[in-house]
Order: sequence, then structure tokens, then C-alpha cells
Amino acid sequence: MSLSAPMNPALVASFAPPVMEARGWLEGVAFAPDRPLLNLSQAAPVDPPPAPLRAAMAEAMEDAQTHLYGPVLGMPELREALAARTAAIYGGAVSVGQVAITSGCNQAFCAAIATLAGAGDAVMVPVPWYFNHKMWLDMNGIETVPLPCGADLLPDPATAASRITPRTRAIVLVSPNNPAGVEYPPALLEAFRDLARARGIALILDETYRDFHALEGAPHGLFADPDWDDVLIHLYSFSKAYRLTGHRVGAMLASPARLEQAEKFLDSVAICPTGLGQRAALWGIHHLDGWLAGERDEILARRAALQAGFQRLPGWAVESCGAYFAWVRHPFDLASDALARRLVREAALLLLPGTMFMPSPADGAAHLRIAFANADAAGIDVLVERLAALKL
Amino acid sequence: MSLSAPMNPALVASFAPPVMEARGWLEGVAFAPDRPLLNLSQAAPVDPPPAPLRAAMAEAMEDAQTHLYGPVLGMPELREALAARTAAIYGGAVSVGQVAITSGCNQAFCAAIATLAGAGDAVMVPVPWYFNHKMWLDMNGIETVPLPCGADLLPDPATAASRITPRTRAIVLVSPNNPAGVEYPPALLEAFRDLARARGIALILDETYRDFHALEGAPHGLFADPDWDDVLIHLYSFSKAYRLTGHRVGAMLASPARLEQAEKFLDSVAICPTGLGQRAALWGIHHLDGWLAGERDEILARRAALQAGFQRLPGWAVESCGAYFAWVRHPFDLASDALARRLVREAALLLLPGTMFMPSPADGAAHLRIAFANADAAGIDVLVERLAALKL
Repeated sequence: MSLSAPMNPALVASFAPPVMEARGWLEGVAFAPDRPLLNLSQAAPVDPPPAPLRAAMAEAMEDAQTHLYGPVLGMPELREALAARTAAIYGGAVSVGQVAITSGCNQAFCAAIATLAGAGDAVMVPVPWYFNHKMWLDMNGIETVPLPCGADLLPDPATAASRITPRTRAIVLVSPNNPAGVEYPPALLEAFRDLARARGIALILDETYRDFHALEGAPHGLFADPDWDDVLIHLYSFSKAYRLTGHRVGAMLASPARLEQAEKFLDSVAICPTGLGQRAALWGIHHLDGWLAGERDEILARRAALQAGFQRLPGWAVESCGAYFAWVRHPFDLASDALARRLVREAALLLLPGTMFMPSPADGAAHLRIAFANADAAGIDVLVERLAALKL
Repeated sequence: MSLSAPMNPALVASFAPPVMEARGWLEGVAFAPDRPLLNLSQAAPVDPPPAPLRAAMAEAMEDAQTHLYGPVLGMPELREALAARTAAIYGGAVSVGQVAITSGCNQAFCAAIATLAGAGDAVMVPVPWYFNHKMWLDMNGIETVPLPCGADLLPDPATAASRITPRTRAIVLVSPNNPAGVEYPPALLEAFRDLARARGIALILDETYRDFHALEGAPHGLFADPDWDDVLIHLYSFSKAYRLTGHRVGAMLASPARLEQAEKFLDSVAICPTGLGQRAALWGIHHLDGWLAGERDEILARRAALQAGFQRLPGWAVESCGAYFAWVRHPFDLASDALARRLVREAALLLLPGTMFMPSPADGAAHLRIAFANADAAGIDVLVERLAALKL
């Protein structure tokens, strides 16, 4: 008798990485030289880090420590710098013991969930959601409780309250949002914090895109609460700020007791974040404030260009927009997943369909997510022109 | 009412990372300048990668792609190179579609388990075991079935067969072994492969240390089986070979169908391995064969030095030894975890106690794991002298 080795049914039942699926649509498609593909499918800087940072990274190759294992929760200097930076931005007190560095912000989310929930538990997530969150919950046997948003793409704390059950372990918010771009107002975040605290669950707040928030100053006051870490788990990414996506550096801010548990997960799944990624992030915090302010200005200008451009597109609507993403309604009598595939061939555009961000694909049939911040003003013009020229 | 956010009891019940715990023993201990700490606790090269590799890595900083997201399963060029290298070493056919690059070999193990088992399933592991394997199984609610080894530190397929139940999803072997160093004979590996295949479970074979195997040529013939990927999941690490521990590059070789499932896990937990680590590994495969052969010679010489040195130590016994590790019996009437703590203060030695590698600490009380390959011949002399001088 010969049998093949088994597969874990929970993993088989999880959906495949949508970004990879979308890349698959490009296979066999030839783009005209005068109309190259415009890829707005993933929030990924297309340019390398600024030259002085690249030079600092090349220099770090001669520091032996760069190449060796480091502490599971990250370099103390980087943890310290992010604690200080977080306190400076948001006000309040954040200590080095409340900061862990992770191999990217997705891993920070996985670690946060690992400290909170196991198979049979539940986690509430506003829809549209970030698909990697949903995937991780699915493959761990954790129920994802969808929290519908209003027309403004904001979730409602009262609705959330009514959907909390004894199995609920956390509410996950992303602001500025992925996929909808919308920036959650400080009062809304505080209401969710109060709800989570009153019900003894965690509030996971993913602020991967906070460096591009339109608000001047602190995006919210949650860290000003001296007991913030009894309820809040804050996630951050250095990847978008300093163009380090290929180096995998993120962070998780939480109570020292929670990080002690996260350390077990991170030791098993990663051992440590990379020496180079951490040194690059630290160099960025110390040297790139001015540069990052310029990046933010540029992305805010792109956002304005996108909004202006879509006003020239009959039938299209930008329902929400911010930081890296716009969530737009298309005018076609065609589901967005079919539309997105046609956009590749007929408009040389790669966008993700709303169907990828919804519990039921039908709910996302009218929408597309546009990672507009990947394109400069000229690129956004190209996007708008190609959409305007569509004949479906 | 105000409540703190919950903790996942399965994670709380998992033990803390032993390497971190051992590092904690160093706190507050002052070492004399003429007797610095000799740290043989972790298999971690202490020197940086060779200069030409460092130079190639510095150069890669000017390749924009190094800094960007890459494919979840790794750079095609590196997957291709590892497929070709594996086929060349072991014989047989390995295709690019059977290779995934991971952020270190621990992550490869996590991904392999994710494809196989969920809460309530069981995985068999010889004891002494590698503690990160046990941690990952624990925190995922997977039962670890211990497989006792004989005096030669080898597991017995017949014993394994008697312990397989309908819940068993895999047997995990590590060769050369961590923590025991022992190299599993090819016939033993084939017997485990046949057992796994007959029972419809997977054989996970972790060969992190295979570049330092004492055997000339292929360590086993498993890849020569044209159907190897119906049962075998092979794990590898570039970290030890090219001194890249801080860059997190490992690999998982398995069937394309299994890698398609692993991709979901890896996308969620890592998105992609780092651009730099992958370029460094690829450069190593293309340029460092001669250098790596010299590294292997050096480590085999250290192994010989360790074995010779321990013959001068009355009461001590090297029970098994190979690649990076020796598994030694100590002569003291003291449990190894207490002994290891005293070795820090009284002998300036950091070794891990056998208690860390056993289901029941009592079973490891007589043993220590020595990551001897971290020390050169002079360092091994220092180890032996300090152990000889111990008065307990």
C-alpha cells in the first residue's frame, strides 16, 4: 500500500494569496511598448530606498553583527527608537518593553492573533477587509466576524457591540484603511477602544500607512491613555515609510506580558527580524524625517490627483480614499473580478477587485481597490485616461 | 467595568524560547578579562560571511529589486539553483516547482506543519528533540508524540510504527541531528520513508546541517526515488553554510501541491523572504563551493578535537557528535539545568542543558548539548580545560 502524505483541511479551505492570483492574470499577456502595464494592485513602493539609506545599508555589511542572529523581539536600539518616536507622535508613554520588532507587519498581525485566539475563537473585522488578515484567521480555525461599514466606509461601535459574543477575542481596525483608504477619526478609534476594554477583548489597530495620514499631528489619542496596553495592540510597518518592503520590518506595540507570549511565536516562526532591515529602519528614524515628510506631501498630492481625475470619469465614484488606497465604484454591469481581468488585457491596468476583500464576493462586485500611491501624477493621469477610454 | 484583553491559553502554556532563557543566565555575571565567556549555546556562526560575499551583498543594495517585495515562494533563480544543487548532491530529479524559499529553516518547519496538521492532530518526534519544533507543535494544539532513541541516539522505525495512530500526520527527523549531532544512516532514513509512505503520513527531514555531514557524497538516497515528493518534505538552511543567520534564508522542498498550500501560510506570515538574503544565498551557491568545503573540513576537525578533548575528561562521555553539536553526559550528581547555570558563573561557559530537549526534564538531567562548531580548536581546548578544572 502506498499513500500520499496528508493535507491540513483548514489550510486547503483557506483561499490563495490574492496578490499572487492577480499576478497570474498577467501570464501570457503582451503589453504594447507605448502602453506598458500600470500595476496598482499592491501597496508597494516601486523605487528603492533613498541613496543615503542604501549607502548606510551597504556600510552595514561590514558590521559583523548585521549578519548574526539578534534578539527575538528585535534590536534594543530600534525598539527604543520606535518607543520614543511613537510617544513623540501620539503623546503618552511608550517604553522599550512595549515594543517588538517583527519580520514585517503581516507577521506582527499573526503574532498578535497568536497571543489572543485559537481555533474556535472569533475575531471581528470591518468589511471590506485586508485579505491577509482573513487568511490567517481562516487557517488557524478562528472565526472572522464581519462588521459591515456604512457608506462612509466607517464601522459603527454600536453594531460591533451587538456582534461580540463570549468567543470574541479582538476587533481589528486598519487606519488609514486597507483596502478602503479611509482614515478613522480619533473619536471613532476611542469609541472602539472603550468598547473593547469594557468587554474584555483586545483592539488591534494596524497603522501600516500612518506616515501618509492626511491629519497633521497625532492620528488619535489612544497612547495618551496611561493604561493603553491593557487593551490596545498597535501594529506598524517600516516598509512603506522607507521603501523597505523587501527587507521585512514591522512592529507590534503591546503590553510586556503580551510581548512575552508573542516572543514564543516569533522565535518559532522567524527566530529574529533581519539584521539589515532593522539597521535600515533605525537609520531611517534617525535621518529620514525630512525625506519622509516630502514623501507624505507627494502621496497626498497623488490622492488629490486621483480624486480630481475620477471626477472626469462618468459613472465612476471614489467612495473613500487615503494614504495608499482608493476604494472606487465602477459603472459597468460586470462583477469586479471579471472586470479586473479584462482591465489587464484591455487597459493594461492591474487593480484588485472588491470581491477579494469581502466575505461574499457578490458584495464586492461593484468595487475596485486602487493602490494609487504607487503611481505619480502622470501615472494617475494614465489610469484615468485608460479607464475613460474603456469600452465594455 | 474594565477588563484586560485575553491571552491565548495554548500559547501561555507553551514554554519560553530556551535560547533566550539561557541568555538570561548571563545577566549580572561579570567575566574576568582573562576568562571571557565561551558561548556554545546556539548553532550560530560567530564570524560574518566571507569578504567577497559581503561585497556582493553591498553591491546588491544598488539593485532596486533587492528592496522590493518578491514572490512568496522565493526568487525563481534561487529556487532553480537549489533544485539543481539538491539534484546534484543527492541524485534524482528535483524541479523548481518543488522548491520554496522561506525566511529561515524554522519558518520552513512551521510551513510544513501548517500544510499537514491542525489542532488535535499528532506529529512524532525523536527525543531528544529540537525545542523550536516542540514549541510550534504546542502552540498549535498539535500533540507531540515522543519517539525514544537508543543509546546510539538513533530512533527505531519499528518503535515508530507502533506509535502511529489515526491522528498522526508526520514524523520529523533532523540529520545531522539537533541537539544530538548524530548522523542518521541512509538505510535508516529509507526505512522511515517507507514507513511514512505505507502509513500515509509525511516524513519531514530537516537537513539544516547537511553541509557539515561527515559522509562524502549524498547523505541519503531519498531524492533518487522518482516519487519522493509524495512523502518527503525536506528542509534546508543557507544560514549555517554561508554565515547568514541574521538574514533568514531557508528552504522547503516538497510536492508542488503542498507548496501551493504552504504559499498561503508564507504569504500571511512573511509575504516573502528578504531580497538580500536570497541574493546572498544565490551568490553563495554560485561562488562558495570551495570555501564551504574548507568550512566543512574545519568543522570536522573541530569535531575530532572535541572527541579527543573529552577523552581527557574523567567521567564525561560524548554520546553522539556531528556537524554542529555534541550530546555529552556529565559526571556530576546535579541536574543539567542547575549545572548549566553554575557553568556560567564557575566556568564562564554557556551550554544548554539536556533538560531543554526532553519531554520530561528529568530525562535530560545527565546531559548537555554543546554547539562545539562555534569554537575553533583553541576554543575547544579552553572548553575542555574549564570542564576539567570544575570543582562541584
